[in-house]
Amino acid sequence: MKPGMSLMRHYLQFKDLRAEEYAYLFDRAASIKRRFKNYERYQPLQDRTLAMIFEKASTRTRVSFEAGMYQMGGSVVHLTTGDSQLGRAEPIEDSARVISRMVDLVMIRTYEQSKIERFAAHSRVPVINGLTNEYHPCQILADLFTFLEARGMDRRGAIDLDALKGRVVAWVGDGNNMANTWLQAAEILGFTVHVSTPSGYEIDPAVAGVKDAGCYRVFQDPHEACAGADLVTTDVWTSMGYEAENEARKAAFANWCVDSAMMARAKPDALFMHCLPAHRGEEVTAEVIDGPQSAVWDEAENRMHVQKALMEYLLLGRIG
Amino acid sequence: MKPGMSLMRHYLQFKDLRAEEYAYLFDRAASIKRRFKNYERYQPLQDRTLAMIFEKASTRTRVSFEAGMYQMGGSVVHLTTGDSQLGRAEPIEDSARVISRMVDLVMIRTYEQSKIERFAAHSRVPVINGLTNEYHPCQILADLFTFLEARGMDRRGAIDLDALKGRVVAWVGDGNNMANTWLQAAEILGFTVHVSTPSGYEIDPAVAGVKDAGCYRVFQDPHEACAGADLVTTDVWTSMGYEAENEARKAAFANWCVDSAMMARAKPDALFMHCLPAHRGEEVTAEVIDGPQSAVWDEAENRMHVQKALMEYLLLGRIG
Amino acid sequence: MKPGMSLMRHYLQFKDLRAEEYAYLFDRAASIKRRFKNYERYQPLQDRTLAMIFEKASTRTRVSFEAGMYQMGGSVVHLTTGDSQLGRAEPIEDSARVISRMVDLVMIRTYEQSKIERFAAHSRVPVINGLTNEYHPCQILADLFTFLEARGMDRRGAIDLDALKGRVVAWVGDGNNMANTWLQAAEILGFTVHVSTPSGYEIDPAVAGVKDAGCYRVFQDPHEACAGADLVTTDVWTSMGYEAENEARKAAFANWCVDSAMMARAKPDALFMHCLPAHRGEEVTAEVIDGPQSAVWDEAENRMHVQKALMEYLLLGRIG
Repeated sequence: MKPGMSLMRHYLQFKDLRAEEYAYLFDRAASIKRRFKNYERYQPLQDRTLAMIFEKASTRTRVSFEAGMYQMGGSVVHLTTGDSQLGRAEPIEDSARVISRMVDLVMIRTYEQSKIERFAAHSRVPVINGLTNEYHPCQILADLFTFLEARGMDRRGAIDLDALKGRVVAWVGDGNNMANTWLQAAEILGFTVHVSTPSGYEIDPAVAGVKDAGCYRVFQDPHEACAGADLVTTDVWTSMGYEAENEARKAAFANWCVDSAMMARAKPDALFMHCLPAHRGEEVTAEVIDGPQSAVWDEAENRMHVQKALMEYLLLGRIG
Repeated sequence: MKPGMSLMRHYLQFKDLRAEEYAYLFDRAASIKRRFKNYERYQPLQDRTLAMIFEKASTRTRVSFEAGMYQMGGSVVHLTTGDSQLGRAEPIEDSARVISRMVDLVMIRTYEQSKIERFAAHSRVPVINGLTNEYHPCQILADLFTFLEARGMDRRGAIDLDALKGRVVAWVGDGNNMANTWLQAAEILGFTVHVSTPSGYEIDPAVAGVKDAGCYRVFQDPHEACAGADLVTTDVWTSMGYEAENEARKAAFANWCVDSAMMARAKPDALFMHCLPAHRGEEVTAEVIDGPQSAVWDEAENRMHVQKALMEYLLLGRIG
Repeated sequence: MKPGMSLMRHYLQFKDLRAEEYAYLFDRAASIKRRFKNYERYQPLQDRTLAMIFEKASTRTRVSFEAGMYQMGGSVVHLTTGDSQLGRAEPIEDSARVISRMVDLVMIRTYEQSKIERFAAHSRVPVINGLTNEYHPCQILADLFTFLEARGMDRRGAIDLDALKGRVVAWVGDGNNMANTWLQAAEILGFTVHVSTPSGYEIDPAVAGVKDAGCYRVFQDPHEACAGADLVTTDVWTSMGYEAENEARKAAFANWCVDSAMMARAKPDALFMHCLPAHRGEEVTAEVIDGPQSAVWDEAENRMHVQKALMEYLLLGRIG
């Protein structure tokens, strides 16, 4: 760790950071994004290396972390399952000890959250969750930043985290890693999630790990969940790792397609988000995802900017 | 796009640039190559990132683009089919929207030209064709530069594009993406291609997309095609993506092996080129490819230098 | 090659460098490691590119070379078997000619030593052996440096190569590439290797390529081999490329597990090393590898630092 940081931090779940740290991160992300858009070089991580370990395929997470690290002046070692199967060629703990001696930061996309927790427990450097079966904190970081850019940014570009307070986010679809992470964010940042999932795909509050039952409400009917929402969001019906259930899921999720009727129940200025890739005609209609309320392309780009702010924070602490 | 560039440009076919732009590019390539040979650092792309998307395997295109980008100070994200199958995990248009938000430049090696066209139509940043079934413009850029280095460069290193005027290039072999691109180059730069292909493997002028029938002549006999040529060039009998036809092709192409007899029909100072990998004893004899008229190693190295000039041009416009 | 270097050097076997060059390299490695630990930027290879060609999978070699090159300011092109099968898509000699025109340095992990020798013979730039069936010089470089850090470094951080003279290294296990390389190192640097292998897995002095039979002694009993040793070291029972022999090897190697009893035969301050990944309960007990005499994590990290010194030396010659 760089001298000056008092304690090494990991980012394994959304609740690993506090509200005031999110306020800082969103401000930094806005600043870093402005520099990028203006072609102002900003390379504070020039001698730092990020190792990315992918046990599930990825385009967005891959490109956003890798290009983001390069933009910050750093370097990236990209390890896939073929190169390094966590816990197979050697115990996860040994991989963590070895890899964390050689690089400054590790991002892992894997299956069980327990794997990334074991890695982090034996790592000398910060570890970032790039998606597990249970959580996807970097995506929610991007989604919240995208919402705040649209609804909580003043003319000078300052972000007001309080713009999230009391908001309603409608989660329509699978009670998956995204849903769990939305719940954690709601508890920390003071908004409410309206969750509607098909029967058998409910969220598990124990996995989500939230204490305050007031941070979410469950709805049978996805249209009801959207009523009054500031943001409607969904995900593919079959997340990575669950492909064998594909047909059963198609049947179960048939009524959980975000369409214009659902959006009409939300606030008039509600945004639509999706972490992509999207399957038009399944979890969302083309009309919605390609329509004026959709923020999905900004949301995708913002993965990169919030992650740059996150990497800067984990490696260098607060700047200035 | 960088402020100062009036219009974003792609490089999807050879005819996407004009003759005067090629004159500029070859001069820049010569200058950039000289600096490389002299270990003079030249890094104008220091905060720029190239995404390379490979749906077909590659060594030369991979190394030349990646090392070239590094030499210019930039960074590279290398995506293979496993990471990102264009049009499978998500519509090409969505991939283009997302990836082009995060990087400054995209190179694609894929099958159908239509894929790269669709990607480019939805990309915010320039797209370069790194080989499709129809065209291979970066290779012809390298071949022409290699020819000009040998036949059109003065003592101070200035390139004279007019040295191509009236020249004869003999294309012996498959009427493939290389042949199509040679025809486009001939039309723009004022030389003639003598094409000789086995029956059933003819060029398709509609695919080549040339208007001036005067830019090429078709010969049944490959020896006739070589008569008076300034450059004799060929390619493997079975290009990537056509492996199933391998045996049929071996039979059909048996007389289209560039050997000393063919080279003897060309001009005494004719060059031999091949985009590699080469199969000695199939499309070319060892005597020719390893002989004094062969320019294949310079040609391979020049891929890197012309592509550096091309990337610089697409990202920064004309320098100086 | 950089002007100023009189002759291009490869590093294909341990005996490619002389004792005085090792003295220099270990001093440089110590200096480079100190800078890394102090976050002092040191980037002498800023416009240099390393191509890594992996025909066998790797984590440690991959991360140590790649992160090491980045720390030195350079860039890396990572080619796997899928991208570039040496000698399959094209003759090795052609790959060498092409790749070595585009990059400054090549590291190869492959099967037969003859492949890397053929590559080097046609390469314009230095080639480093990143493991072959016959040798693993970079690992022994790291092991020796790790030993010297512990037993041959003075208070100011200077390394004394003579601290190796007369030492005993016990090699317990397979007579493989690691064992061969230990023998070469012993001959050059003046120590003795006690080798104990199961019957049928003996070292082949002709392959090891040592002339001085005094540099090693063979023991039937691995406990005897450890008697009085300064360093006890072993490797997995089944190295990469020999997986088909796995069951036969498990039976043959059963008594060649480094355990506390073996360590008790060595000197009281003897170190234990293993190039990893380790299989606890097979070639080494958990008690030993996770115990106080084990230097395996420093050894793993030191791969990176000695390789940085090696790359610097091959590209820039002696510094200062």
